[in-house]
Amino acid sequence: MKADNFADRLSAAVLDKGSRVCVGLDPNPDRLPTHLLEGNRLGEAVERFCCGIIDAVAEHCIAVKPQAAYFEALREAASPVLWSVMRYARQAGLLVILDGKRNDIGSTADAYARAYLRDDAPVDAITVNPYLGSNGVIPFVKTAAAEARGLFVLTKTSNPSSGELQDLRLSDSGKLVYEQMADLVARWGAELIGEYGYSSVGAVVGATYPEQLAELRARLPQTPFLVPGYGAQGATAQDVAAAFDERGLGAIVNSSRGIIFAYEKRNLPPTEFAQAAQAATVEMKNQINSAIEQSAG
Amino acid sequence: MKADNFADRLSAAVLDKGSRVCVGLDPNPDRLPTHLLEGNRLGEAVERFCCGIIDAVAEHCIAVKPQAAYFEALREAASPVLWSVMRYARQAGLLVILDGKRNDIGSTADAYARAYLRDDAPVDAITVNPYLGSNGVIPFVKTAAAEARGLFVLTKTSNPSSGELQDLRLSDSGKLVYEQMADLVARWGAELIGEYGYSSVGAVVGATYPEQLAELRARLPQTPFLVPGYGAQGATAQDVAAAFDERGLGAIVNSSRGIIFAYEKRNLPPTEFAQAAQAATVEMKNQINSAIEQSAG
Repeated sequence: MKADNFADRLSAAVLDKGSRVCVGLDPNPDRLPTHLLEGNRLGEAVERFCCGIIDAVAEHCIAVKPQAAYFEALREAASPVLWSVMRYARQAGLLVILDGKRNDIGSTADAYARAYLRDDAPVDAITVNPYLGSNGVIPFVKTAAAEARGLFVLTKTSNPSSGELQDLRLSDSGKLVYEQMADLVARWGAELIGEYGYSSVGAVVGATYPEQLAELRARLPQTPFLVPGYGAQGATAQDVAAAFDERGLGAIVNSSRGIIFAYEKRNLPPTEFAQAAQAATVEMKNQINSAIEQSAG
Repeated sequence: MKADNFADRLSAAVLDKGSRVCVGLDPNPDRLPTHLLEGNRLGEAVERFCCGIIDAVAEHCIAVKPQAAYFEALREAASPVLWSVMRYARQAGLLVILDGKRNDIGSTADAYARAYLRDDAPVDAITVNPYLGSNGVIPFVKTAAAEARGLFVLTKTSNPSSGELQDLRLSDSGKLVYEQMADLVARWGAELIGEYGYSSVGAVVGATYPEQLAELRARLPQTPFLVPGYGAQGATAQDVAAAFDERGLGAIVNSSRGIIFAYEKRNLPPTEFAQAAQAATVEMKNQINSAIEQSAG
């Protein structure tokens, strides 16, 4: 595992599977199919739900993104369930991107890296929040380099208020905050470029801001993007097409609620949550691939 | 518990105990006293270490700040140990500030709030990273209001590279990024002001930047500060005196390694880690109180 490079594993998986889909595992306890809760503790229900989703989508997506918050909502039961689900996803041949937006400095950042990015941890990459500056990111970069792991640094996020800080203009450089951050991300990742031309230090860039997405693609030619905001947050396949290069590489697009709770929108019984998730994943895969072809043609 | 207000519990504890010390629980697995590791699994050693520290310091500090990263380093064993330690600290009469620098939006932020700030969770406040803007903070503010809990928003952090983003000047307002963030923190906390005049929405302001600390104290007269950087990171009691008002309220000062690993610096055997931590806590308490008195006089 250590001999290779996260960015290359990501690109190879995209080409191999013909998919750019990342399925977000957001097992909101309030929305779990009720039949999973009967006779089970909540943690067991979460685990069965996530593993059922993984079985159904593994062939059609390249990664899952467990959202740490929904596992932490299990309180003392959190970590055994999270780790079990992550191991299951790895065994299903998926990349695992743990979305915890972690951030800290020095030996504390090393402790997070020790938890998730070292040795046999079933995690390929984590999301990192850069508010602390280089001290809060470089420890993760160093571990990623040594352990063939990756990270995705929050740059321009998909939420409505992301501009409150990220879109402000800086007087010295004339850049916007997210542009400044983008340039830092490129610098942090400059020594981790793989054979496909992408770094193992990626950026989180929301699909809900397609102009900024296109601009950042041009600004960061070697940075892979993790693109949230598809589906439930309103972005379409056309919105994300600009995130990809001419090979269809350079990004993966995440959908969480739109896939794992697809049975609700499709008016299917909760017992068919997995089939509905599979259908939604296939549909999203095809829509993105078509949009990329149209955009290239 | 819900009838009162986190900020008031904080101020009352400071006046009651005559202490402004928060002890950071950073149980770095590589630095645990070796006798605790003999015959114990790592998680047990971490728990014994933290509970031993809590017993020793409870009388002389008002809060502990468990650092989530060092518990997460226990991997699947993380959450049971973290929750057990937090419960133990609460039973010892301490406020518990969980330092996870969490950040997310909407229902995901609610999941973190559900985990740590609701019902019988043994957590009084958490630290929050504001890079996502209001969407990433207001869900925590709402839960804090409903559940008499608090949060501390990263504003000007103690690390050397904090200025890479936080000290940049914004062209529209002419403010620095951390000043802009400070004004947002005041706005987010404006409706949670308690009887002592402080909000349950606090700010993290590093002791290692004493000028900015003094400036932010003046700028945010109703915001309690969680002040890291004391001791191991180099800040002194004189550096933090400006964080306090004329009543000696308005801030708590954290020290982690300087207290929990005090036996190393004092050349005491590891078996005396708890006594060393107690002595270091008493010393820090007295130094801060003296510096406040001198500064007032």
